[in-house]
Amino acid sequence: MHETRIRVRFDEVDQMSVVHHPRYLIWFEVARTQYLTDLGLPYRDVVASGTHLAVIEVGLRYLKPARYDEEVVVTTRCTESSGARVALSYEVRRGADLLATGFTRLASIEPTGRPKRMPEALRTLFDAAVAQGK
Amino acid sequence: MHETRIRVRFDEVDQMSVVHHPRYLIWFEVARTQYLTDLGLPYRDVVASGTHLAVIEVGLRYLKPARYDEEVVVTTRCTESSGARVALSYEVRRGADLLATGFTRLASIEPTGRPKRMPEALRTLFDAAVAQGK
Amino acid sequence: MHETRIRVRFDEVDQMSVVHHPRYLIWFEVARTQYLTDLGLPYRDVVASGTHLAVIEVGLRYLKPARYDEEVVVTTRCTESSGARVALSYEVRRGADLLATGFTRLASIEPTGRPKRMPEALRTLFDAAVAQGK
Amino acid sequence: MHETRIRVRFDEVDQMSVVHHPRYLIWFEVARTQYLTDLGLPYRDVVASGTHLAVIEVGLRYLKPARYDEEVVVTTRCTESSGARVALSYEVRRGADLLATGFTRLASIEPTGRPKRMPEALRTLFDAAVAQGK
Repeated sequence: MHETRIRVRFDEVDQMSVVHHPRYLIWFEVARTQYLTDLGLPYRDVVASGTHLAVIEVGLRYLKPARYDEEVVVTTRCTESSGARVALSYEVRRGADLLATGFTRLASIEPTGRPKRMPEALRTLFDAAVAQGK
Repeated sequence: MHETRIRVRFDEVDQMSVVHHPRYLIWFEVARTQYLTDLGLPYRDVVASGTHLAVIEVGLRYLKPARYDEEVVVTTRCTESSGARVALSYEVRRGADLLATGFTRLASIEPTGRPKRMPEALRTLFDAAVAQGK
Repeated sequence: MHETRIRVRFDEVDQMSVVHHPRYLIWFEVARTQYLTDLGLPYRDVVASGTHLAVIEVGLRYLKPARYDEEVVVTTRCTESSGARVALSYEVRRGADLLATGFTRLASIEPTGRPKRMPEALRTLFDAAVAQGK
Repeated sequence: MHETRIRVRFDEVDQMSVVHHPRYLIWFEVARTQYLTDLGLPYRDVVASGTHLAVIEVGLRYLKPARYDEEVVVTTRCTESSGARVALSYEVRRGADLLATGFTRLASIEPTGRPKRMPEALRTLFDAAVAQGK
């Protein structure tokens, strides 16, 4: 399983002293950047080659709160890959405690925003990740 | 329908020049604050009286992008109310264009984070809102 | 004096229940957008015509805190204008209380980041604003 | 010199594809958390013992931009320590390039916001840091 370690920043916590719920989407994005880099295709290179992966759908469930200066681990897995879309799912843990789960569905688009086929290099990586359950 | 107008801030836009996807959750929260105030029970008063409404689940679909300095309108509606939970759904539009839809499910909790029954005043408001489809 | 009204969002407040200090820079940017629009030259049009105003220096003093759902007013004034740079100063108030003061110095640059002369239309506006003390 | 490594997150970059200027204050805060922990007094423990360090003044100069997925290093140094206040200065580099410099001045306060003397443990640490130029 792909893991990304994140230390909770002071600005990520709200006045209830828990991490504000939208920040988990930021953490998913941090994890996605690391995941693509570790698969061998950094997202900055994907963008530089003219493809953007736009987020078209997300879902999250919040189970337990995280707090300032705690370390959490985000596990990332690719669950679907098709000609134009890819879905990733995420789990956020602090030690053994599962804090949140979620998914993001992304579409391959031109810099202009028009849909485009997933570039072959990305498609191959995502297909392999799904096949290997990682 | 309850409407909240929001002008897109420069810091809400990413390097693709579109509003970054987690910001819609911030907009939902801005809309929710306004919605509760307009129902007659400002959230700051709810908090002051010892109840927090913690977000326990969210879902969003992104249809079209929003850009810097555009004005968007968030419509908010209460779709479920129970003894401990409430669900709201949102639509974000720029003029006639539907940009995104989503929902948030919230749970009534103590300041300590322990679940508590929804205070009667809130429950009554939410039940009435669901009954009136607003 | 140019004024911009802002209602404090829940995500702008930290675990001490006061607005987190970097957010004042976001408010200055919101005020700057409104200021330029009201001067007759929306920043989105400036950007569309190929000029960016990059922030090169900032300074802020924090006097009193702001809290969730309060309304604050940012006053904006142009204090310096030259061939390539402009400085604006800001005051944030809640009612009669002065909460913070600050300034931003901005440089005219190409989209590539290279310095460029301030476009004539902007220079004229900023010079006039300085002369009129607004 | 105390160093904190930070990888630029996608949400930290604006539509000019450079890190948005307020984020450097967030990075200073991340660096400050790490700095206090490495001095032996984690800020979360300071807060738990009833002292907050409120930011009362900041200043920053921006020299060169940072971009998505780059790694930057923030060096932190304590420059002043007194009975109620402390000042830290920061430099942000990417490799040998100096990207930005800045400072934050903080005041010791009660959780209520009232000024209080700097707790002895903190004062001792800060005085020693200033004396050792670190």
